Amino acid sequence: MKKLFFLSIITAALLASCNTGPAKEKTTGTFQPLETVVPARPAGQKHVLGLTTPKIDTVRVGFIGLGMRGPGAVERFTHIPETKIVALCDLHADRVEKSQQILDKAGLPRAAAYSGSEEAWKELCQRDDIDLVYIATDWKHHAQMMIYAMEQGKHVACEVPAAMTLEEIWDVVNTAERTQKHCMQLENCVYDFFELTTLNMAQQGVFGDILYAEGAYIHQLEDFWESYEGDWRMEYNKTHRGDVYATHGMGPACQVLDIHRGDKMNYLVAMDSKPVSIPAFLKEKRGEEVTDFQNGQHTMTMIRTENGKTLHIQHDVASPRPYSRMYQVQGTKGFANKYPNEGYALKADAVETGSVPSHENLSAHEYVSDEVKKALMDKYKHPIQIELEETAKKVGGHGGMDFIMDYRLIYCLRNGLPLDMDVYDLAEWCCMGPLTALSLENNSAPVAIPDFTRGHWNDIKGFRHAFVGK
Amino acid sequence: MKKLFFLSIITAALLASCNTGPAKEKTTGTFQPLETVVPARPAGQKHVLGLTTPKIDTVRVGFIGLGMRGPGAVERFTHIPETKIVALCDLHADRVEKSQQILDKAGLPRAAAYSGSEEAWKELCQRDDIDLVYIATDWKHHAQMMIYAMEQGKHVACEVPAAMTLEEIWDVVNTAERTQKHCMQLENCVYDFFELTTLNMAQQGVFGDILYAEGAYIHQLEDFWESYEGDWRMEYNKTHRGDVYATHGMGPACQVLDIHRGDKMNYLVAMDSKPVSIPAFLKEKRGEEVTDFQNGQHTMTMIRTENGKTLHIQHDVASPRPYSRMYQVQGTKGFANKYPNEGYALKADAVETGSVPSHENLSAHEYVSDEVKKALMDKYKHPIQIELEETAKKVGGHGGMDFIMDYRLIYCLRNGLPLDMDVYDLAEWCCMGPLTALSLENNSAPVAIPDFTRGHWNDIKGFRHAFVGK
Repeated sequence: MKKLFFLSIITAALLASCNTGPAKEKTTGTFQPLETVVPARPAGQKHVLGLTTPKIDTVRVGFIGLGMRGPGAVERFTHIPETKIVALCDLHADRVEKSQQILDKAGLPRAAAYSGSEEAWKELCQRDDIDLVYIATDWKHHAQMMIYAMEQGKHVACEVPAAMTLEEIWDVVNTAERTQKHCMQLENCVYDFFELTTLNMAQQGVFGDILYAEGAYIHQLEDFWESYEGDWRMEYNKTHRGDVYATHGMGPACQVLDIHRGDKMNYLVAMDSKPVSIPAFLKEKRGEEVTDFQNGQHTMTMIRTENGKTLHIQHDVASPRPYSRMYQVQGTKGFANKYPNEGYALKADAVETGSVPSHENLSAHEYVSDEVKKALMDKYKHPIQIELEETAKKVGGHGGMDFIMDYRLIYCLRNGLPLDMDVYDLAEWCCMGPLTALSLENNSAPVAIPDFTRGHWNDIKGFRHAFVGK
Repeated sequence: MKKLFFLSIITAALLASCNTGPAKEKTTGTFQPLETVVPARPAGQKHVLGLTTPKIDTVRVGFIGLGMRGPGAVERFTHIPETKIVALCDLHADRVEKSQQILDKAGLPRAAAYSGSEEAWKELCQRDDIDLVYIATDWKHHAQMMIYAMEQGKHVACEVPAAMTLEEIWDVVNTAERTQKHCMQLENCVYDFFELTTLNMAQQGVFGDILYAEGAYIHQLEDFWESYEGDWRMEYNKTHRGDVYATHGMGPACQVLDIHRGDKMNYLVAMDSKPVSIPAFLKEKRGEEVTDFQNGQHTMTMIRTENGKTLHIQHDVASPRPYSRMYQVQGTKGFANKYPNEGYALKADAVETGSVPSHENLSAHEYVSDEVKKALMDKYKHPIQIELEETAKKVGGHGGMDFIMDYRLIYCLRNGLPLDMDVYDLAEWCCMGPLTALSLENNSAPVAIPDFTRGHWNDIKGFRHAFVGK
């Protein structure tokens, strides 16, 4: 079904680029990116850019999915004031019970429990005493759960990637627009300390005009493959080529480039190396001979924006190497690099003196010294970080970034502010999966990235976090 | 002229992919890379893979181009036994004189001098007492000088990039094949210590099956732009889009992937960000308003090989950031990373114990400790390095790698061995310029990389340096 959908896209795109005939080619002289179908915005439906909804004094939450990521989220919410954990759902009753014990331990009342059926989560969504549905299931259930929850009048937050196919993505976007509900993807890496500090530096002009950003998910998963319910993650990698887990790299890179806040991604090209390590792992550990394993050993994607900037994204869950999200930011005045060592390099005129030591003659040819780096990171510590640093470290969850993510979600809902990440971020970061697959199946041909805002990518000028009184 | 040449290629390629009609598309379902013309090998002409020529007892050398890189080469040759510096040529007589003084200082006889005319270098090539012509002029003269020198019966060595267009590259390949002369590009970075050690580790299987390699030339040239005769390098960047200086990244990456020794590059895609910093520099420093500056701020290229492996190459001479050639090697058993810090990460079973400390439990999730790294680099120090380390450090030139490069060239010529780099390496590393431009002009469409060996890329199994008695 999916295959046919893609093939029809390809044929349409090839015909579109070919049937115009030599006359048009002579005019432009260029090969045009393959295009996928962009459904028109249904009549009467409004975009949700900058969406605000009525303030919620106490945010009542229902959790779906209590396997790997869910219990940690429940635990973090016990530390967020003015929230109420109303309902807990998982296919397995014992997992619900384990999360109830988290509430016990926190001295909170037990929540309503849902389990034992593939449809139990729908009952949770139907409750009339929930404001927010928080989803941490396997990837394949994300989109239908978000859509159903919004249709039941709930805001939704969903683990990454929140949608896997273009059909799912457009359905999620259309549902969010139709219901005017918040639909946030739980991308935690945008709240990591270095990324948040660097974003703040970027927004204050320290790097000048930012022309290039990198991001990645490079994390060998050998120790994790057995942890997923029904082997769903391995199954997905077996059957899908492309960058199927791009959001950790995309999130920080897109925020620093103001994607759909003054710029937009126009097209991508993807390339992968043949899969070797995971098929070998399957043979060695499970005695399984998989000859048509789909997901490449290492997948690269390059993206060009309307404003002539570029992104570079990588995915590798197979190769033996240290964890890396790459994360680089390159501007006309300076450079930030996260892996394997965090570092900044700045032109002499990039930083006002003040709290940054001025005795060192800055040159972008060298990384700044540890002393200058520390001074920079203190000076440009993000307001969110300043507010939450101590609590975040205490509560934990990937070094505190999970807590900051949850806290911000609740802060914005309680104060009637736009969320940090909207449904178009979700669409843009998730579309890498299907669109890179399309490029790969066409020998790395360029593929157009839809404007998921359908005409409004330039309405907002610059990505900013919302705060009360600003 | 060039533009027309490209356009006709594009049109041909598009027509080739389109005019087959929907029937063919349905069969393959894929967009095929754009192709450039591959001229047939002229009748009676042989390839030069593994070329050996008669031993030369004393290698007699003529140098052309004594501006930036030339004098250093002359100096290094005064330290290489069994060579004779026979002739020196530069457009400017004072530069020839300066190099004569290098000979004076070394207690060597002065060489024949050629200067004062755009054709003086031809007279040098015509001499009958020269075995090797060593070229260090601007890029645009490289190909014609190499071709002429070979036609005069000389071996040639030429600075990077040795050829700039596909026509030049094919002319150089055909001339080398017709004359059966050595034609080596002076790519020094393949002799850098970390790259050479890593190559040795790769060849001994430490990284397992290598599936991915990176390389780059990231070097902000603001301090250098005024150093080039007649502003030729700026002029080239003004008028050429694409990775115009790819060989430093390509060389080490291609050697570790055995390109045209069991694998071949099939196609590439390139993407760049808009040029900002160099046009700004031109405005600020020269008062020059350049609105159609061609070379991108940052250019990325991805390459896929016949064996399903990938290369990633970058070029950035504009952005303020620390120097980097990137250089990563990723295999199924381990990983090497050069910038910003040299590091290795290895699976526990990747290294036999022996001289490598076994008390540390190796995990590819972490870089090995400094102690293990030192032990690894000692154990796998390349034979070339072992032989030349002390002399190379003393003579210098980019930390000794220039000297090793020259020494190896002479060693192989004197012993009648195949050179470390052949004319197909030259072609493969140089074709990035024109082929990335073609991809960029087509919205990053894939472009086929010619098999410059014309059918012989799989004859030699694995890249190896030649040694006497092996």
